[in-house]
Amino acid sequence: MSPFKNKKILKILDSWRDIWAIGNLSSVAHWDLETYMPLKGSKTRGEALARALSIRQKMFLAKDFVSLIHEAEREKDLTDPERGMVRLLLRDLKFYEKIPHEFLNELEKTTNEGTVVWRKAKDTNNFKLFEPYLTKIFEMNKQMAEYLGYKDSPYDALLDLFEEDLTSAQVQSFFDEIKTPLETLLGKIEKSTKYLTHSPLEDAKYDRKKMEELNQKILHLFWNDFERFRMDVSAHPFTTSFGGNDVRITTRYQDRDFTASLLGTVHEFGHALYDLQSDPELEITPVQGGSSLVIHESQSRFWENFIGTSEPFIEYFKKDFEDLLGQKLSTDDLMRYFNKVTPGVSRLEADEVTYHFHIMVRFEVEKALIEGKLKVADLPEFWSSKIKEYLGVIPKNDSEGVLQDIHWSGGSIGYFPTYSLGTFLSAQWASEISKSANLQISKLENYEQIKNWLGEHVHKYGSTYTLEDLLKKIGMTFDPKVNLKHLEEKYAKLYGF
Amino acid sequence: MSPFKNKKILKILDSWRDIWAIGNLSSVAHWDLETYMPLKGSKTRGEALARALSIRQKMFLAKDFVSLIHEAEREKDLTDPERGMVRLLLRDLKFYEKIPHEFLNELEKTTNEGTVVWRKAKDTNNFKLFEPYLTKIFEMNKQMAEYLGYKDSPYDALLDLFEEDLTSAQVQSFFDEIKTPLETLLGKIEKSTKYLTHSPLEDAKYDRKKMEELNQKILHLFWNDFERFRMDVSAHPFTTSFGGNDVRITTRYQDRDFTASLLGTVHEFGHALYDLQSDPELEITPVQGGSSLVIHESQSRFWENFIGTSEPFIEYFKKDFEDLLGQKLSTDDLMRYFNKVTPGVSRLEADEVTYHFHIMVRFEVEKALIEGKLKVADLPEFWSSKIKEYLGVIPKNDSEGVLQDIHWSGGSIGYFPTYSLGTFLSAQWASEISKSANLQISKLENYEQIKNWLGEHVHKYGSTYTLEDLLKKIGMTFDPKVNLKHLEEKYAKLYGF
Repeated sequence: MSPFKNKKILKILDSWRDIWAIGNLSSVAHWDLETYMPLKGSKTRGEALARALSIRQKMFLAKDFVSLIHEAEREKDLTDPERGMVRLLLRDLKFYEKIPHEFLNELEKTTNEGTVVWRKAKDTNNFKLFEPYLTKIFEMNKQMAEYLGYKDSPYDALLDLFEEDLTSAQVQSFFDEIKTPLETLLGKIEKSTKYLTHSPLEDAKYDRKKMEELNQKILHLFWNDFERFRMDVSAHPFTTSFGGNDVRITTRYQDRDFTASLLGTVHEFGHALYDLQSDPELEITPVQGGSSLVIHESQSRFWENFIGTSEPFIEYFKKDFEDLLGQKLSTDDLMRYFNKVTPGVSRLEADEVTYHFHIMVRFEVEKALIEGKLKVADLPEFWSSKIKEYLGVIPKNDSEGVLQDIHWSGGSIGYFPTYSLGTFLSAQWASEISKSANLQISKLENYEQIKNWLGEHVHKYGSTYTLEDLLKKIGMTFDPKVNLKHLEEKYAKLYGF
Repeated sequence: MSPFKNKKILKILDSWRDIWAIGNLSSVAHWDLETYMPLKGSKTRGEALARALSIRQKMFLAKDFVSLIHEAEREKDLTDPERGMVRLLLRDLKFYEKIPHEFLNELEKTTNEGTVVWRKAKDTNNFKLFEPYLTKIFEMNKQMAEYLGYKDSPYDALLDLFEEDLTSAQVQSFFDEIKTPLETLLGKIEKSTKYLTHSPLEDAKYDRKKMEELNQKILHLFWNDFERFRMDVSAHPFTTSFGGNDVRITTRYQDRDFTASLLGTVHEFGHALYDLQSDPELEITPVQGGSSLVIHESQSRFWENFIGTSEPFIEYFKKDFEDLLGQKLSTDDLMRYFNKVTPGVSRLEADEVTYHFHIMVRFEVEKALIEGKLKVADLPEFWSSKIKEYLGVIPKNDSEGVLQDIHWSGGSIGYFPTYSLGTFLSAQWASEISKSANLQISKLENYEQIKNWLGEHVHKYGSTYTLEDLLKKIGMTFDPKVNLKHLEEKYAKLYGF
C-alpha cells in the first residue's frame, strides 16, 4: 500500500512530478552525454540541459508550489516517507530561494566551460590555463556559502549540500581519529617483508572483449534481472537511475591493470543495488533511491572492499583471471595484487589504507580556500607539500597532482569527505550483517542474504531518512573504529605482522 | 551570418528554446527507449515523456507566446527562415489550440497502451485483442479531424498533419497515375525468364559482428565525421537528431537476408544526411533539419534505391559480401538479389515495384475507416481481399497482414502515403542531379559531389520551405513519371525485356 496518503502530500506529488519529469529526462540526457553522445553534440546538449534546469527552478519556485510545501510542513501524522519528502523538498526550496536564479545560471555556465578547460589543462599539464576558472569557481562557492548561511565555517554550508547537516568540525574530528592509526598501519605494511610497491600483474595486458564478458559474469553472479539494470562504458565510471526499474552503471577499460575495471564494476554495482532495492511504492517521489552520499558510498565500498577483494571471490573467478591474462596465477599473488597497499599520488588508484590521506588533503585545501586562508595561485605548491607530508610522495607534475580530479571543475566543493566517511561506514555494514544476520560476508552462497539484509535495513527506505536517522533506526552509530579494526586485521594477515 | 534578425522573431526564439529544450531531452529519452533502455523502465519513462509533452503544450499556449507568434505573422520583410519559422509555429499553434489538452492526453495514453497491446496481438496473431484499441484510435482520429477542420474529407485533416497541405484527392490522383504502369511492369517482370520468387542468398546466414563492421564500412564510405553521427541497434530502424551535430540512425540484425540490415543502414543514412547538412545557422530553431516527411523519405530512398542497390556499389563491396556469407558470389547474382521483385504480403520487405501497392491498400483502408465507410471489425477481411486484388497474394494470418505495421497503434493515421510520394520524388533527385550537375549517380567517385548538391539544393534549408516551395525554388514539380521511367528502364535491363 502506498505510504503517501495525506491530501496535501498527494497534491504536492502531482505538481512535483512535472518537475521530476524534466529532471528525469535531463538525467537520461546526462547519461547519454557520458556514454554515447557524439563529441560535437555537447554544445547543443549543454544548452538543452541548462534551459531544462532553469525551467525546473522556476517550476519549483512557483508560488502555489512553495505554499503547498509550507502547508505540508505544518501537517501532523505524516508517514515517514511523507515526512522525508517534506524534508527533502524544504532542502531544495532553501537552495532555490536563497540562491539567485542568475547566480545559478552563471555557475552552470562557468562549470560547463570549466570542465572543458580542466580537461585540456590536465591533458597538457597546464595549471595556469585552469587557474582563472578554478579561482572563479571557488569565489562563487564562497558566495554561495554566504547565500546559504552557516554557523561556524562557510565550508559547512557547502558540505551540507552533499551530505545533510555535515560540518567541517565533524569531518575534522573524524580525520583526527583515523589519521594516526592509518599512519601506524601504513608504517607496518611498508616494513613488512611482503610489501611490494608494484605487482607484475598490473602490467599484464588483457583483451577488452574478455574483460567485458568477465564484468558481465560478475554482475550476473550478483544480480539476475537485466530488464531493470544495465552497464555501459564511460570515461569516468558512475551509477545513475531513472526509476527503480531502470538503473545503470558504467565502467571503463584500459588495456592493463584489470582490477581497475573489475573493482570499478563491483563498486558501481553497490551503488546500483541501493536504487534497485528501493521500495517500489516510492517510485516517482522525492524519496525514491538513496540520496545520502555517505550511505551511497558505504554501499559501493561494501561490495568493493568486502566482496570484490575477498579471497572466496578471487578464488571463484581465478580461472577467468587466468584466461584473461593468459597465465597461471596463484590465489596468493592475486590476493596481494587485489589488496596491494602503496602510497601514490593518485586518489583514484589509491588503496583502502592510503585513500583517506588523499581525502584529508582535499578537505584541508577546500576548507582553506573557502575560508580565504589559501589562494588558488598557491595551490599547486601547497598540494604537493601536503601529499609529501601525508604520503611521502610528490606528484611529478600538476596533471598527476592538483589537476587529477574532475570535481572542482564541475563546481563540487565539499563532496570529497563523503568518500572517506562512506568507506568507513561500509565496514560497519559488514560488521552489522555478520553479527545480526550471523553471516560470513565473503562467502558466495551468502550474497543473496546479504542483499536481502541491505534491502530490508537500508535500501528499501530510499532517502526517507537522513544518515543519522537511518543509523539510529537500525540501532547503530557512526564509528570509525570498526573500519580501523577491519584494516588492521586484514592487512596484518596479508602482510604477516 | 544568422538569418534571424527581426526583433519579434528573436523574442520568439528565446521563449521557444525553452519548449525546444524539453522536446530535445524528450527526443533523447525516446531514442534511449528504442535502443538501450531496460525493458521494465518503460512505465516510468512513459510517465516522464507524457508529462513533458503536456508541459510543452502548456508553454506553447502561454498567452504571451501566442501573441508573439501572431505579431510575427504580421511582420513584413522577414527572411525566408524567419517566415518558415512563423509558418511552422502557426501549424503547431493550430494543433494545440484546436485540440483540447485532455483529448491529447487521452490519445497519448491510448496509443502508449495500444502499442504494447499491438505488439502482443502481432506476436500471438490475435487481431481481436488489438481491435478495441484500434477502434478507439480511429474514433479519436475522426474526432481529431473534426477539431482540425477540413474541406473535402476528414482524412485530409490527418494527411496534413504528416505532410503540410497534402489532400486525399492529391494522393488518389497520384495512385491513379502509377497503378496501371506498375501493374504492367510487374506483369512483365513475372513473365521474364529471369524472374525469381526466391534468391538462395536470402537464406545465407551471416555473422552479426561482420555485418556490423560492414555497415560501418559503408557509413565510413558515405561520411567521415563520426563526432557528429552514430549508429545503434533497435527493433525498428529509425533516424533521429538532437541538433545538427548529433544525428543518429539505427539498424537491425537478423541472422540472414543481409540486405535488410545493409539497405536499412543506407536508407537511414539518407535521412541522417538531411539533418547533418542543415545550415548550422538554423541550429536550435524551428526550421532546423528536414520536416517534410515526403522530402525526408525522398532522401532515404535516393540513397537506398539509387546507390545502395546500384551495380558499382555492389561491385565495390563484393569481397565483403563474399566474406560475410563465406561463399563466392557473382555480381549478377548479387544484383538480382539486391533488386529482386516479387509480390509478397509484407510492406517492409517489399521491393521498388510492389511497395506502392501496399501503400495503396493502407490509403484506401485509412480513408474508408476515417470516412466511416468501413468498420474496424471488418478490417482483416477487407485487408486480405485488397492485398489479393493488388498483389495476388493472401496473408497467412493477421500477424502477416493487417497487424504488420506499428503505425496505427502509435496513432499515426495518414502517414503511409508520404512513403510512396517520397520514393517517387527520390527518382527526381537522381534525374535532377544527373542533369544539372552532369553526374552519373551510381559512380562511387561522385558521392561527394552528390552530397554537396543535395546539401546546397535541399538539406541546407532545413524545413524553411514546404515541399511545394522547395521544388519551385529548384525549378522542379512533382512528377511520378520520372520514377515510372526509372523503374521501367532498370527492370527491363535486369530482367531482359
